[in-house]
Amino acid sequence: MTLDFRLVEVSEGRAVFHGEPGEFLYNPIGSVHGGYAMTLLDSAMGCAIHSTLLAGETYTTLEAKVNFIRPISTDTGPVRCEGALVHRGDRIATAEGKLIAERTGKLLAHGSTTCLVMRQ
Amino acid sequence: MTLDFRLVEVSEGRAVFHGEPGEFLYNPIGSVHGGYAMTLLDSAMGCAIHSTLLAGETYTTLEAKVNFIRPISTDTGPVRCEGALVHRGDRIATAEGKLIAERTGKLLAHGSTTCLVMRQ
Amino acid sequence: MTLDFRLVEVSEGRAVFHGEPGEFLYNPIGSVHGGYAMTLLDSAMGCAIHSTLLAGETYTTLEAKVNFIRPISTDTGPVRCEGALVHRGDRIATAEGKLIAERTGKLLAHGSTTCLVMRQ
Amino acid sequence: MTLDFRLVEVSEGRAVFHGEPGEFLYNPIGSVHGGYAMTLLDSAMGCAIHSTLLAGETYTTLEAKVNFIRPISTDTGPVRCEGALVHRGDRIATAEGKLIAERTGKLLAHGSTTCLVMRQ
Repeated sequence: MTLDFRLVEVSEGRAVFHGEPGEFLYNPIGSVHGGYAMTLLDSAMGCAIHSTLLAGETYTTLEAKVNFIRPISTDTGPVRCEGALVHRGDRIATAEGKLIAERTGKLLAHGSTTCLVMRQ
Repeated sequence: MTLDFRLVEVSEGRAVFHGEPGEFLYNPIGSVHGGYAMTLLDSAMGCAIHSTLLAGETYTTLEAKVNFIRPISTDTGPVRCEGALVHRGDRIATAEGKLIAERTGKLLAHGSTTCLVMRQ
Repeated sequence: MTLDFRLVEVSEGRAVFHGEPGEFLYNPIGSVHGGYAMTLLDSAMGCAIHSTLLAGETYTTLEAKVNFIRPISTDTGPVRCEGALVHRGDRIATAEGKLIAERTGKLLAHGSTTCLVMRQ
Repeated sequence: MTLDFRLVEVSEGRAVFHGEPGEFLYNPIGSVHGGYAMTLLDSAMGCAIHSTLLAGETYTTLEAKVNFIRPISTDTGPVRCEGALVHRGDRIATAEGKLIAERTGKLLAHGSTTCLVMRQ
């Protein structure tokens, strides 16, 4: 399975990825594998947190949760995944994300994550 | 990003996948992308539920949650992902999963999922 | 443990609860029990979904997830819990919620939920 | 709302609570409030992690997730909530929990949690 997506926008506490799901992502039950939405959301939410790190800080993702709202297929067309910071503390940061079909604006999946911020 | 894994075992309410994480899966912060663990866990947990479907039934994953326990790198070696049914109702099924390093037996990630079962 | 809160506002896809956490809610490690934030968030998110039901429809909560951001104590003062619909499909609805300290506007906890909508 | 439950068993990495849900816990849609299952699971899972703390260590719950499997009513009778450690690292611990009807052995709810361990 090849995941095809790229970072298109990043500002403090926010990151946007763009992807074009193809047939090579299909799972045996006839739609794009759930791992695709999870990977995009994990990337966008992690990046939104990454964008808030100070010099000498690093982070690791503790957990991520994804709700699958609509099946993704080749008919879906290009997708846009937005991650946004919810909370940034000294040690813990949380973010949420939305995966949207660019053509229709429809929500495909959404999620949240918890990260641990560490000083090196 | 190419995800490389295959189903190696399935029985009622249980499914096991095998994977070999490689450098091509690395994310910019120097370990295998979290999407890899999420995709394997989603596959193993979904498959464990799939294995309980009756003729004429289908399912869709509503949500999945993953805890990342240890970073995965090329040093991790082959991994084993086990999904196990927790509850099977008429409409709702839940499962949990564990991703384990085969060489050391160490837990790399674990998760849970909620699926909707439908009659066609 | 007594949970003290009440619904103060409801419109389509949105519900707000108000609570006043007291010492009677304390857990053995010296702050208000996490169950308090979970119960308020579950109430506000469930209510936001409830507000979208048509005649003859009912719902049940499949799962809820809560992130605890700041400890709650008697010093926190009154709290406000807002639930908002994220997605409303024929069978599945999702919502998210925030628990906020009224005095400071600080985020105390946030969460999300998945509900099953049924026709009676 | 009054939550009535007590710790009945604790060993390293494991904790069991006992509860007797009553009508005073009912929500407006006719069953025991979801906050009851969430509070018991949060207590049992947190306690399972608490039981692994060394001298000088404390912990805080970062997030908890609960799946509601069966409605709880006064007919359910007494319930038993078991929390069990999944992973204990230097800084992060995770646990899972099950809420079971004592009379029938049926699963009522299950969940997982992520905690941060701190040195004082």
